Amino acid sequence: MLLETIESPARIKDLSREQLRQLADELRSEIIQSVSRTGGHLASSLGVVELTLALHRVLDSPHDKIVWDVGHQAYAHKMLTGRRKAFSTLRQLDGLSGFPKRSESPHDSFDVGHSSTSVSAALGMAAARDACGGEEKIVAVIGDGSLTAGLAYEAFNQAGHLKKNLVVILNDNEMSISPNVGAISSFLSRKMTSDFFVRMKKEATQIIGSMPKIGKDLLSLASRAEHSLKGFLTPGMLFEAFGFDYFGPIDGHNLDELIETLTNVTRLEGPVLVHVVTRKGHGFAPAEREPSKFHGVGPFDAETGEVIAAKGGGGSFTGVFGSTLVQMAARDERIVAITAAMLEGTGLKEFSTTFPERFYDVGIAEQHAVTFAAGLACRGLRPVVAIYSTFMQRAYDQVVHDVCLQNLPVTFAMDRGGLVGADGPTHHGAFDLSFMRHIPNLTFMVPRDEQQLQRAMETARLHDGPFAYRYPRGKALGLALADQPQAVEIGSGEVLREGDDGAVLAVGSAVQAALEAAETLAAEGVQLRVIDPRFIKPLDERLLLQAAATGLVVTVEENTLQGGFGSAVSELYAAAGVAPRLVLIGLPDRFIEQGSQDQLRARYGLDADGLVGRIRDELKTGDVTGAAAAGS
Amino acid sequence: MLLETIESPARIKDLSREQLRQLADELRSEIIQSVSRTGGHLASSLGVVELTLALHRVLDSPHDKIVWDVGHQAYAHKMLTGRRKAFSTLRQLDGLSGFPKRSESPHDSFDVGHSSTSVSAALGMAAARDACGGEEKIVAVIGDGSLTAGLAYEAFNQAGHLKKNLVVILNDNEMSISPNVGAISSFLSRKMTSDFFVRMKKEATQIIGSMPKIGKDLLSLASRAEHSLKGFLTPGMLFEAFGFDYFGPIDGHNLDELIETLTNVTRLEGPVLVHVVTRKGHGFAPAEREPSKFHGVGPFDAETGEVIAAKGGGGSFTGVFGSTLVQMAARDERIVAITAAMLEGTGLKEFSTTFPERFYDVGIAEQHAVTFAAGLACRGLRPVVAIYSTFMQRAYDQVVHDVCLQNLPVTFAMDRGGLVGADGPTHHGAFDLSFMRHIPNLTFMVPRDEQQLQRAMETARLHDGPFAYRYPRGKALGLALADQPQAVEIGSGEVLREGDDGAVLAVGSAVQAALEAAETLAAEGVQLRVIDPRFIKPLDERLLLQAAATGLVVTVEENTLQGGFGSAVSELYAAAGVAPRLVLIGLPDRFIEQGSQDQLRARYGLDADGLVGRIRDELKTGDVTGAAAAGS
Repeated sequence: MLLETIESPARIKDLSREQLRQLADELRSEIIQSVSRTGGHLASSLGVVELTLALHRVLDSPHDKIVWDVGHQAYAHKMLTGRRKAFSTLRQLDGLSGFPKRSESPHDSFDVGHSSTSVSAALGMAAARDACGGEEKIVAVIGDGSLTAGLAYEAFNQAGHLKKNLVVILNDNEMSISPNVGAISSFLSRKMTSDFFVRMKKEATQIIGSMPKIGKDLLSLASRAEHSLKGFLTPGMLFEAFGFDYFGPIDGHNLDELIETLTNVTRLEGPVLVHVVTRKGHGFAPAEREPSKFHGVGPFDAETGEVIAAKGGGGSFTGVFGSTLVQMAARDERIVAITAAMLEGTGLKEFSTTFPERFYDVGIAEQHAVTFAAGLACRGLRPVVAIYSTFMQRAYDQVVHDVCLQNLPVTFAMDRGGLVGADGPTHHGAFDLSFMRHIPNLTFMVPRDEQQLQRAMETARLHDGPFAYRYPRGKALGLALADQPQAVEIGSGEVLREGDDGAVLAVGSAVQAALEAAETLAAEGVQLRVIDPRFIKPLDERLLLQAAATGLVVTVEENTLQGGFGSAVSELYAAAGVAPRLVLIGLPDRFIEQGSQDQLRARYGLDADGLVGRIRDELKTGDVTGAAAAGS
Repeated sequence: MLLETIESPARIKDLSREQLRQLADELRSEIIQSVSRTGGHLASSLGVVELTLALHRVLDSPHDKIVWDVGHQAYAHKMLTGRRKAFSTLRQLDGLSGFPKRSESPHDSFDVGHSSTSVSAALGMAAARDACGGEEKIVAVIGDGSLTAGLAYEAFNQAGHLKKNLVVILNDNEMSISPNVGAISSFLSRKMTSDFFVRMKKEATQIIGSMPKIGKDLLSLASRAEHSLKGFLTPGMLFEAFGFDYFGPIDGHNLDELIETLTNVTRLEGPVLVHVVTRKGHGFAPAEREPSKFHGVGPFDAETGEVIAAKGGGGSFTGVFGSTLVQMAARDERIVAITAAMLEGTGLKEFSTTFPERFYDVGIAEQHAVTFAAGLACRGLRPVVAIYSTFMQRAYDQVVHDVCLQNLPVTFAMDRGGLVGADGPTHHGAFDLSFMRHIPNLTFMVPRDEQQLQRAMETARLHDGPFAYRYPRGKALGLALADQPQAVEIGSGEVLREGDDGAVLAVGSAVQAALEAAETLAAEGVQLRVIDPRFIKPLDERLLLQAAATGLVVTVEENTLQGGFGSAVSELYAAAGVAPRLVLIGLPDRFIEQGSQDQLRARYGLDADGLVGRIRDELKTGDVTGAAAAGS
């Protein structure tokens, strides 16, 4: 196998074209075999095998920089840069990251995970190179889906202005994760609105009409001009308008064409855009047929593409959200749903087909999704914006400034709250309680199970102001679902277990672990009260102050401890002038690595065992309060 | 005076063109007179007087919706919609807002303050209108500066896709706040890169060259075609590419042309863009000459435009930041500075002229500013990103994902932290401690005076990781500045006053008030320790635990109490198992209104008097700690 001999990308420069083609086949086969066992982002990586080989053939990495956008397409790059043997650990605890990571290899020039950062980062590297008198080539690789994000546009705008030497490769597979949307998409996909050309033709005809003596030749000219302009203007026009030189579209699976083009464009001055057309999932028929399914996929059969069902069965929180929203929308015509290029991931597929007129996919554009929702709410609708917790980070200002400041009834449905597993630090929803709870006017629920999720959704529907709820990735508990869920009183928690030896305040996915821990400790004679406050804003002050009277309060959350739920409890106690012994359990103040949710919960002491151990320790230490313990 | 008779915009429909012109003059005069006394956003509002009249002539507000972008240009709109008499209260405590505000008038369709939200909001309103079977017209008015933000682009992308009836007026004054930058700017300003047309011409010549017999007539045709295409393609091409019908450019000070065009375009189907060219400051010579100075201005002489100097003199924090950065950059060539269209506001003018090659204005593009800085830092530079606290909200995800995750040495210089005064709720830096302190790897200082600001800057320069410091709007304390400031130890606070009856932990602008309060209480026999922790992350645990040993700890910050500095202190005490009586003083959990900084500090108990009163109360209540106080 040729691939076994590639310890570094420098080796690629010695290979014949025939060998490169063989290498492409071997890479595809390795990626399919490996990802069929570990799961991962298959379709995107298969689409750029030839592009990756061409880049490493033409460039001299790590001296030259390849900046991958999002980074889920970088598997071939990883295999060619000394990480083939480690590939079986991809996305596993303490294994290879599913994304480029500077700490993993000098060939990874920028850490990614979220979309549309590559042009900004590459432009920064280019500006710094010129400031330092460097000579390295810098190439950003960005998908057409990532172009829908404003960040990419901001970067193109400055790149066209600065005129640094920079190559941007537009990897155009006519997909983001869901099929691509928006004006730019139709523009790129050469389905350019005919209006534009009708108008173009009219102008040309006017010119020709004013010169009657030339006659028939000119009709032919006009036709040829139209054809030429069409090629000239579409789809390069947009990038030319930004001051980029445009090349393409070229076939992203033709190694010869790729190598020739990249060799030429990396010698040019100024910003250059190369438009490369690829096919997501190329070379694996099941992924070509269903690229969305194989965007991010669990283990599957490497022959048939059949996904190996995870053990246990049962619905996901995502599924409950999706089906419940359809039910609610059937009863309440004010409800509309918005996704930012995550139709399937957010569970909105059924909604989009049941209520196509009430469904909006805005592209990878979380900022706009939120402000657009604010506009919808101004006119009396009840928009539900479904965005993963980690991607909601992109819309923080819009939540503050466009929704909460005006107290508009927009609902934020935040899937993937807490630990998400294999996608790791870029994707954990580890901060949402902290970056959302301080926003005035916002009501924020953290449902512990699917029944509570349904109730949160109904509570949000009836509430006349901004409302957020966050729920975890993965399977729900298998509880019976309501056809018509009941709202809960705003700010009301629930006592799930009685006890007076201390109180555990747990939110979301931590509630189950807290209940199990309380059972275990009960067997040791310690009776803990377990409370689910349900709302992290507003807090159930009465229940929480009663909890303080037990003398020991333990808070548990799947969120950073900094500014999170436990922090809110500590603020409440300070304001009320009460000071129980307070133990805050949650994620530590660092970025959390990848690993399965269960592995990470165990590692960070958030499972029942972890809670039992911690609470036992606290009980042993005894009730040490007040200034006496402060030391000096 | 005709203006006195306009109680509602409906009245405008009855006026003759001559009367409208008179009204324009009267509006200008009123705005100049009024703003000369209160201060405010003068130049933008003067630029759109005719446009505002034309909009209210053609539209039927509040049934039809006018969505002002940013909103600082809406003074004429406010005067025409029943708020002329209240205009003397503009931007004053409990007075008229300087921005549109739905709670102030039904004619204000969307609350604004931050830029580039109008197209998103208007598109939401249009989609909701169609869903509800409404007929109202919706018009967004956006400046060319606001077009540099990605949010606007995301909105254009969806608008071109949805094809709702929507009019976007591009108010092109070739300015954001600083002169505009970026490729889009040169594109709009018709200085379109000649490369584009050179290429255009070459293509045309090839076509013509292939048809030799036609000869000379075709050269003439080619020339005319180029001219025609130029008109056709520039600057409308970009918007046509997005699926908008483009009209313009038209003269934004010609009422007849405006009224005719708006009448026509509001009858069209689908998204329409009207390109209106205006002059910032139109009709007031000093503002036409120096539009940046009159963008946001304090009181001035209405005849000469001379700004009336505020009492007291002395430099601002902004000024200290700017001059110190120039000094530092002279010694450390790794330092580069980045602004997002706030060259003067952030104090970087001198830097930009001293080190033009090391200065970047990215436009109103905070997201890109941060990720671009991450790219610069990857290559060994030390970028300093100067963005107001409130606008940093736009770049939260980039701070998390592109800088802190990779632990890159990017410095965030956040001016206007805390209460900003007259700009009110959209502009207060009331959240930064809360939305930044939970981000792993970030070091965060809050300097109390200009000497500490200088030391924070030096500390950041020497620190090999992400670093933020936030400082207040307005005058510094008048302390002597260092030529070469000394760094401080990371995480080291300072005891500013000794005492054992309790400890006050104050950060930033609150430190002075805390010291004064401590003096006052000392006269009453209460000796308070005053500590400036300097860092809100990492905290000086030793000093803070010593403070706890006094039994009473009061935290003071100009930030929301939710998740802020006091919250961090309460987390620390919980983790350490100590429980002093803890009093958290800061901003309440709501959006803070406009008013002078002093007025607002007094209202929220953040001045010395407020602190004295609050601490006295706490001392009276006595030392109530532990579960006993919890109630039940």
